Amino acid sequence: MHGTKRGQGGDDMHTDEELDSLDELLAEDGAAQIHSGAAPRGVSAERDLPKVARNSVLLSALPRDLACNLLAQGMDRSYARGETIFLQNEPARRFFLVLEGCVKVYRMTESGAEAVIAVFTEGQSFGETVACRGMPYPVSCEAVSDCRLLQIEADLLLRAIDSDRDALAALLTASCQIMQALVRQIEDLKARTGAQRVARFLLDQAGVEAGAVEFNLPHDKVLLAGRLGMKPESLSRAFSRLKREAGVEVKGHFVRVSDIEGLQQFSIRDPALAWSKPG
Amino acid sequence: MHGTKRGQGGDDMHTDEELDSLDELLAEDGAAQIHSGAAPRGVSAERDLPKVARNSVLLSALPRDLACNLLAQGMDRSYARGETIFLQNEPARRFFLVLEGCVKVYRMTESGAEAVIAVFTEGQSFGETVACRGMPYPVSCEAVSDCRLLQIEADLLLRAIDSDRDALAALLTASCQIMQALVRQIEDLKARTGAQRVARFLLDQAGVEAGAVEFNLPHDKVLLAGRLGMKPESLSRAFSRLKREAGVEVKGHFVRVSDIEGLQQFSIRDPALAWSKPG
Repeated sequence: MHGTKRGQGGDDMHTDEELDSLDELLAEDGAAQIHSGAAPRGVSAERDLPKVARNSVLLSALPRDLACNLLAQGMDRSYARGETIFLQNEPARRFFLVLEGCVKVYRMTESGAEAVIAVFTEGQSFGETVACRGMPYPVSCEAVSDCRLLQIEADLLLRAIDSDRDALAALLTASCQIMQALVRQIEDLKARTGAQRVARFLLDQAGVEAGAVEFNLPHDKVLLAGRLGMKPESLSRAFSRLKREAGVEVKGHFVRVSDIEGLQQFSIRDPALAWSKPG
Repeated sequence: MHGTKRGQGGDDMHTDEELDSLDELLAEDGAAQIHSGAAPRGVSAERDLPKVARNSVLLSALPRDLACNLLAQGMDRSYARGETIFLQNEPARRFFLVLEGCVKVYRMTESGAEAVIAVFTEGQSFGETVACRGMPYPVSCEAVSDCRLLQIEADLLLRAIDSDRDALAALLTASCQIMQALVRQIEDLKARTGAQRVARFLLDQAGVEAGAVEFNLPHDKVLLAGRLGMKPESLSRAFSRLKREAGVEVKGHFVRVSDIEGLQQFSIRDPALAWSKPG
């Protein structure tokens, strides 16, 4: 969804038309339309990366003007809740930036059990490494709310890497971060109880170090259970334990933690003992 | 442990001295000494990659002469069983090829529970992506048997990437494979029972599609349990179930599977139902 190029073919990624659309993005603080309609000219590479991309490990690690170019050349697409974005084993040629809403990536076993591998929300990007290699997606991806994704051709990034070592560093940074997240998840699944995983998730969401805090769960309890590797009924039991033992109240999506430090203690040392109740 | 360079600095990686040591490696079919002592000259890049590196996703995906150069410039080091190879959060500058023996990479929780993330055996390489980025190792690494590792400076690979796009493709291939293995492991932990995980591990080890087969477990049951995300006592229970329900006999390290196809069926559909017994 980028304008006609003035340069000689795809290697010249800087064109005014493309940057127009980015300008709109910048003008609306990153959350709004990315298309090539009429708009004010003249983006400065000195400006900050649009807010919408600041949670993307790749885009925030890239040289800013390159990141802006990739954003400007992305294709903006909307998906309805439940819609499939790609399926496992499809060849990967694009990576994704979540502009609005939320997606899950998951695997399905032969017998139909689903394993949620990750959930990506606004500002996060995913799929970079596999798309740059053109390998099959190792997971399927589905919209868990109505959402908008910016799809970026991996070839644009690969061409940038040819001439800019910083672009390689950014891609490797993104790859390392994904691996780290997967490794942390395996650590959680193998060495922490379900209730500890719930406690750690709530601490992440709370985003404070002490005191009391209230917030809403980011998604429904079935997805949350899948994300944490629990059955929904195990998640309910974990909430009950956290209520009794760590002062956590959950009503629908609403969560109240009365003592963050107490919850932190629980997350480190579940009284029921790590390893004894992995479900 | 490479010879004096004849070229002008580190960018010229082709020197006779370095290739000598590789020649020894080749001469002994890949499993033996890699050092820079006196040895016959003249390795041909037309030869196959030494056997010792053929299970390495990175090295087997690299252009052969580049892979041979990296091997020739690696530092060969031995570790005793239980010895630490690196610790989580140490800055990564080298990646590793297992020449002999076996290592585990793991994470330790705040309360001292260990989560085995992966086990690497002869011919496998690991740590490439994080070393190329110079980020902290996300895991610790320990020898689980006496072992020999070839340590390769990531800078050598990065310099190769500057001039050879195939080298980038090889690194991305290796990164994707690691991610895929981590994703598969999360799928196993979230969507399969402990007994199914054991069945899948035994099928991997058996390496045949049908009939009966006998083999030895590659490591002790405590490590195997950790690798599969189970307590040792859960592993024992899983072996008992596999004996009753899938004709698997385990005595010490010795395993006999009487019907591979039956075990495959069990691995797909555990009669006790996936999800209900994640431990």
